[in-house]
Amino acid sequence: MNATILCVGTELLFGQIVNTNAAWLSQKLQILGINVLYHYTVGDNPGRMRETLIRALRETDLVITSGGLGPTQDDLTKEIIAEVMDDELVLDERALAEIETVFSRAGRRMTDNNRKQAYLPKSGTTIYNDVGTAPAFALEKDGKIVIALPGPPRELQHLFETQVLPMLAARSGSVIRYRMLRFYGVGESDLETRLEPLIDGQTDPTIATYAKEGECTVRIASKRPTPEEAETALDETENRIKEIVGKYLYSDQDQDLAEVVLNELIAKGLTISSAESCTGGLFADSLISYAGASTVFNRGFITYTNASKEEMLGVPAETLDRFGAVSEETAVAMAQGTLKCAGTDIAVSVTGIAGPDGGSAEKPVGLAWIAVVTASGELRTKKHYFRDRGRNWNRKTFVLEMLHQVYCMLETISC
Amino acid sequence: MNATILCVGTELLFGQIVNTNAAWLSQKLQILGINVLYHYTVGDNPGRMRETLIRALRETDLVITSGGLGPTQDDLTKEIIAEVMDDELVLDERALAEIETVFSRAGRRMTDNNRKQAYLPKSGTTIYNDVGTAPAFALEKDGKIVIALPGPPRELQHLFETQVLPMLAARSGSVIRYRMLRFYGVGESDLETRLEPLIDGQTDPTIATYAKEGECTVRIASKRPTPEEAETALDETENRIKEIVGKYLYSDQDQDLAEVVLNELIAKGLTISSAESCTGGLFADSLISYAGASTVFNRGFITYTNASKEEMLGVPAETLDRFGAVSEETAVAMAQGTLKCAGTDIAVSVTGIAGPDGGSAEKPVGLAWIAVVTASGELRTKKHYFRDRGRNWNRKTFVLEMLHQVYCMLETISC
Repeated sequence: MNATILCVGTELLFGQIVNTNAAWLSQKLQILGINVLYHYTVGDNPGRMRETLIRALRETDLVITSGGLGPTQDDLTKEIIAEVMDDELVLDERALAEIETVFSRAGRRMTDNNRKQAYLPKSGTTIYNDVGTAPAFALEKDGKIVIALPGPPRELQHLFETQVLPMLAARSGSVIRYRMLRFYGVGESDLETRLEPLIDGQTDPTIATYAKEGECTVRIASKRPTPEEAETALDETENRIKEIVGKYLYSDQDQDLAEVVLNELIAKGLTISSAESCTGGLFADSLISYAGASTVFNRGFITYTNASKEEMLGVPAETLDRFGAVSEETAVAMAQGTLKCAGTDIAVSVTGIAGPDGGSAEKPVGLAWIAVVTASGELRTKKHYFRDRGRNWNRKTFVLEMLHQVYCMLETISC
Repeated sequence: MNATILCVGTELLFGQIVNTNAAWLSQKLQILGINVLYHYTVGDNPGRMRETLIRALRETDLVITSGGLGPTQDDLTKEIIAEVMDDELVLDERALAEIETVFSRAGRRMTDNNRKQAYLPKSGTTIYNDVGTAPAFALEKDGKIVIALPGPPRELQHLFETQVLPMLAARSGSVIRYRMLRFYGVGESDLETRLEPLIDGQTDPTIATYAKEGECTVRIASKRPTPEEAETALDETENRIKEIVGKYLYSDQDQDLAEVVLNELIAKGLTISSAESCTGGLFADSLISYAGASTVFNRGFITYTNASKEEMLGVPAETLDRFGAVSEETAVAMAQGTLKCAGTDIAVSVTGIAGPDGGSAEKPVGLAWIAVVTASGELRTKKHYFRDRGRNWNRKTFVLEMLHQVYCMLETISC
């Protein structure tokens, strides 16, 4: 099956917002084995919307629209789809009741415009919206399907995951299950090469790799007659992947490294503190951005100057003089000083050269030393170096490496 | 003039990358007074690329393409454009020489594929690429223009700003100048209402407003016969805007609040330190993400627990007990403790409720207290409250408010 993604909204054509829905939907349709041939964006203009929809339906079997389902006069997506598909809009009582509930709960007055949102194509299947006021729908005619979703990414993603994905899978008498496996410490091309024997000739589950700053994700997806068969197929494939590259896997639930580390700390009842130089608080932020952090993150030191390393953490001046601020010795002294001040179970430190200045042949931009110490006397250090790709890219990779060293310490595995 | 933006690349249709070029180009074309009617994305497929280009040229006068100018067999944008516009590709000697220089400088071997990049439409105008290997070009025929740009955003943006923008402006015998004015402390709709008398009936310079997390940007653009006239027109409009909402303006050079604060600190030779609770290092990060931070940012304290506020900053237990961790008194004690420990000219603190838990009727999620103190004894505090829009949105607004309080202290203006 071939598909077009048709995004509607003048704010997209003005460049006021970046279209993230097209990429998101494309990834999900790929899981279903549906080829996306076109992304189109048009403004809130009935003529151009009509022509573009007609073209999309001629060229592909499935058209997914986003946007234009709101209560205002500009929102014409439903009207145009009904017209092009030779259908009509009728009141959906359940949709109306749901919109009324949203308004009465919020203590807001409902207008006739909002009532308009409950009018939906007569021959369509309503996709009731439990996270917003705009109901979505699917409409099929002569072997062509249009699925209209609301524009806000949170609503679009939720409705797609919970209702559209199962609906599309069911058309082929199948269910779809997929998992995102997250890896650290292995490059994308290396990962692909190692998994090649598995990827080649494998039709279900499908395996796809994605790269992100210093990280890789492998998506495995299975389309089978029953959920049990799909899950079993995923288990088997996941196990085969683990046999090959399992030592780099840190999450099979699409979680960030920070979230995984935080959950491990919570599960083990351990507290942590940090000392950062060039990362300037980004490590602490990576944990504190999750609500559960308050039970495990105790305090952080941002020691950006040599004086602050000495005064806040008791790093000896001799250590800084003899080995330099960016050295294994300084990283260890920073972590030990942090542990002592904070009294936590674990302390982690980083000292590095983020650039653009400050690098040398011996200590280039992109180099960092990381140390992790525990109250029970364990110590691990890591010399981290990635090719310099700019100050903030470097800083993010330093934080990932800190998280990974803490993760390794928690797992007591060698990395 | 009406335009289509046509992005080429299978990686876009797979959802592996989000298309930021379409929004970026749309904003810039709007400055030129060009209406963008469509965004299209197609894969590296000659048939669909050809059909889509033909349609775009029928529907609009200007087509800007991005992507498909690389050295591989997949890269077919030039070939398709030449075919559709009835032109032919010929060797551009200067383009070839430039590509050869890039390779010889990098010590890399040049292949025949790279040589292919120097073949360009015979009747076109080459847009030489000083930041990459793919030359771009403009080709005009029968009143229709195609401009082909490389896909990597850094190259596309640079070539557009330096060559395409002047080229398109010159077609109307004009030059284009524009400025981005950045505001803090005023909402977008409020700003629009206040500027309405200026916006209404104003044809040049044009005025457009944009909203971002807790901030607003106003773009003013002028298209005039000479650069001097355009700059004079911008000066006049900027002055009129300043008369109305000048007290909220913090940059007329499209700089972040963090960058503005950092540059002010550097210019005044002042040092700063920080104490953060729920923002967890984000304030320090906002400054340290800029390379110049090392001369002004001394150290930061992430005091996420009450104990750490007492031990690291000497906040009295009585203050915490009596007024609570989120209070003016605690914020002041944190800032004063930071100033004392760090010995900087300025210290700033924040203590707030980021959510989702921890709020109450009296102290709701989204509330923060901020304090700024100086070595010369000045003190300012601010109770910040925005409606809760999620933990990390709240945390970002807290950081913006911290930056703004420091900015106000530096300007010694009242906000």
